[in-house]
Amino acid sequence: MELTKEKQIDGVAQRDFRLEVDGQSVPCTVWSHPDAGPAPVLICMGHGGSQHKKTAGIRARALEYAARLGWVTLAIDAPGHGDRISRERSAELERSVGARVTGRADGRGLDPEEARALSSIAQRAVPEWRAAIDSTLGLDCVSPHAAVGYWGVSMGTRIGVPMVAGDPRIRCAIFGLAGVRPGQADFAEAARRIEIPIQFVFQWDDAVAPREHGIELFDAFGSKEKTMHVNPGGHMGIPSFERDAWLAFFQRHLS
Amino acid sequence: MELTKEKQIDGVAQRDFRLEVDGQSVPCTVWSHPDAGPAPVLICMGHGGSQHKKTAGIRARALEYAARLGWVTLAIDAPGHGDRISRERSAELERSVGARVTGRADGRGLDPEEARALSSIAQRAVPEWRAAIDSTLGLDCVSPHAAVGYWGVSMGTRIGVPMVAGDPRIRCAIFGLAGVRPGQADFAEAARRIEIPIQFVFQWDDAVAPREHGIELFDAFGSKEKTMHVNPGGHMGIPSFERDAWLAFFQRHLS
Repeated sequence: MELTKEKQIDGVAQRDFRLEVDGQSVPCTVWSHPDAGPAPVLICMGHGGSQHKKTAGIRARALEYAARLGWVTLAIDAPGHGDRISRERSAELERSVGARVTGRADGRGLDPEEARALSSIAQRAVPEWRAAIDSTLGLDCVSPHAAVGYWGVSMGTRIGVPMVAGDPRIRCAIFGLAGVRPGQADFAEAARRIEIPIQFVFQWDDAVAPREHGIELFDAFGSKEKTMHVNPGGHMGIPSFERDAWLAFFQRHLS
Repeated sequence: MELTKEKQIDGVAQRDFRLEVDGQSVPCTVWSHPDAGPAPVLICMGHGGSQHKKTAGIRARALEYAARLGWVTLAIDAPGHGDRISRERSAELERSVGARVTGRADGRGLDPEEARALSSIAQRAVPEWRAAIDSTLGLDCVSPHAAVGYWGVSMGTRIGVPMVAGDPRIRCAIFGLAGVRPGQADFAEAARRIEIPIQFVFQWDDAVAPREHGIELFDAFGSKEKTMHVNPGGHMGIPSFERDAWLAFFQRHLS
């Protein structure tokens, strides 16, 4: 584990480091309250396709959780994202995919090639997440017995479901903007193995993840406590009040 | 308007009164903080079939809202419910219908006769609600310009949807445990006229209100902001955390 950069933002410590996992150098970021002592809660946040570990929504919540609650947040760049490609390519990717998804009005889901690419990214990302959580739980700013929660929608769900299914340290998870497509038996099987509390946020008019696929994923989760929040609108339109519902969910299960 | 009973419960004033509406004497209850001055928020709560205006869930929230927030809550007995029948008959009704709904595992919805009875109750209840809100907004404990919200699930939605559709004073509403059944074009039409923010709580395995009917009702609401909370389980199994989500919704829209 190699610390690459450290700075303070609004009184919160933001530390970048790199981890070697299976010959890959994985860029990670940890946000923490500098004076709060070992945090009792660690939140892992998985970004969406084309985004990166410090994408605006993740960074804003990580800063809020650290400043208000003393929680630590961990985010990592998925394969082929963020600092794992050039800065220019990353910015271009976020712009172009974001625009495509926002403008996608043709009612089709991901094409088979996109779906295969996501599946391959997820396979590589799972051991990277495991190593990043191991390392973070060894930092001074986090209790080694911290309660761990996961948040990740869209690609963050595609990666998060198999990751959470195989990691007993994670006590609750927020997923969303994703579904089970035909032929994704392994993905549905991973969802069935998950038994921790789940909050699942879903956009009712999402061309990337159609309703019936989202409902199939919600139904697949093996959890006794699972709740699905359905809102009108497309893939990029989660209403801002869901952010409050995410915090309430984490507080209920991790505090 | 005739005050029939007044008492204090845990520091909250509970006042029962009766209103004459279309030749019917309608029993109403208002909960308020005795020292907080005119309340800026009025919550109207509609009970479910077989229940009554002081049913446990309504009473507990009314006390909490008054004690913690200084809000006023109004509840009224629906036609054929609560103090509009004998005390013994009311208790028996709540027990027997509650048990039947809880135990209903045969997958069927309401039978046509039950559906017709609900429709007739709703028709009579709408003007009663209107009169009760008029009277409550004239009480000293409520500001005449109070922000008004509605909560009612199951029969409270069957009555609440046409009531809210026709009352511009109501700024947001929580519905649930109900759907649009075949032949209920008027009910769906009322839902389409509603444009205020809606939170819709729905049980995924509810034999009384099947999924497809619930989704049809959610889709019918004309509101730009509408959110559906889906949880596993039957008609009587709304998880307790939804109670927090109801308060958060009201605080967001009425405070």
